[in-house]
Amino acid sequence: MAEHNALPLIVLSEQFAKLPGIGMKTAQRLAYAVISMSDEEAKKFAEAIISAKQDVGYCTQCQNLTEFDLCPICSDSRRDSSVICVVETPKDVTAFERTNEYNGTYHVLHGLISPINSVGPDDIKLRELLDRINKNNITEIIMATNPTVEGEATAMYIARLLKPMGVMVTRLAFGIPVGGQLEYADEVTLYKALENRNEM
Amino acid sequence: MAEHNALPLIVLSEQFAKLPGIGMKTAQRLAYAVISMSDEEAKKFAEAIISAKQDVGYCTQCQNLTEFDLCPICSDSRRDSSVICVVETPKDVTAFERTNEYNGTYHVLHGLISPINSVGPDDIKLRELLDRINKNNITEIIMATNPTVEGEATAMYIARLLKPMGVMVTRLAFGIPVGGQLEYADEVTLYKALENRNEM
Repeated sequence: MAEHNALPLIVLSEQFAKLPGIGMKTAQRLAYAVISMSDEEAKKFAEAIISAKQDVGYCTQCQNLTEFDLCPICSDSRRDSSVICVVETPKDVTAFERTNEYNGTYHVLHGLISPINSVGPDDIKLRELLDRINKNNITEIIMATNPTVEGEATAMYIARLLKPMGVMVTRLAFGIPVGGQLEYADEVTLYKALENRNEM
Repeated sequence: MAEHNALPLIVLSEQFAKLPGIGMKTAQRLAYAVISMSDEEAKKFAEAIISAKQDVGYCTQCQNLTEFDLCPICSDSRRDSSVICVVETPKDVTAFERTNEYNGTYHVLHGLISPINSVGPDDIKLRELLDRINKNNITEIIMATNPTVEGEATAMYIARLLKPMGVMVTRLAFGIPVGGQLEYADEVTLYKALENRNEM
């Protein structure tokens, strides 16, 4: 990006480059694409950014992103509010909803406990989860954080915190992915699959 | 993208997905990134889109993108305005400028002649090039379109048009890229490299 490029184009490229996974070359390509949009399309795009930022907040109950006070899942009376699936991000909620199999509610932590990155229990939406458990009749908490070091540690931490409260805490099953091949599975996955084997 | 996602998020994702090379999954990821921006950052992003679209137009001479009437290259008196490098897109100008070796001016066609896509000579900025040649003292036109079917055809078409006007028309050299390996070069490139061999 040098002086021969129009300044507003450079500014826009730099804005795109701030997004995750967008390098300077892609950012420049996207900026050129905006230039070739119609005025109306560009305005719509800009408005969508402002609107998403202004109108989307956290659900007061499950902390998922929503434009309402209470998200559509929490306010749906057909969902089983006594079961809470605890996930790291709103994207994980979308993934579970795609299965069309889960009928409980969620709780989005917006992060994982990670002492290395100085993220403690107070930096994620854990207090809100404890509030929910105290105020409502919860029968099961499903820990659905990723099987990473931080994900496991956070699941363990929360499980230990909840056990004295008399709530059943479960963990997602880890094993060979459906359609996956044994020879390509890593050792840890294979070990987990063996350890959690079921009678047929 | 289902009903459990906040509507403004879906709208923004769809806007991102309209950009070239951005699929629905990436678009969703980018929309989430906008949500986690500060209000000020999101506003800056939206303003950059509007500003780029409103303030950037075509240089009245070379048709490159610029926020001025005449782009910085055309208005730079140190550049040799008697040499015009004809390219397809503004991105090609950026590529040439990066070499820091070219001191002439450019002409951006904003497209290539392509009968299959019903793009004729009148659909690209060819008339503007002829005007420039008629009005100014041009010594050389460098055809720098890509070595594709359309690029070659457009270069040939323009060259034939300009020959009777007494202008020297040259074509970029094509051959093995510097740092490239012979064994990975395709046949056409290798043939071009052989054909255009130079005495050492």
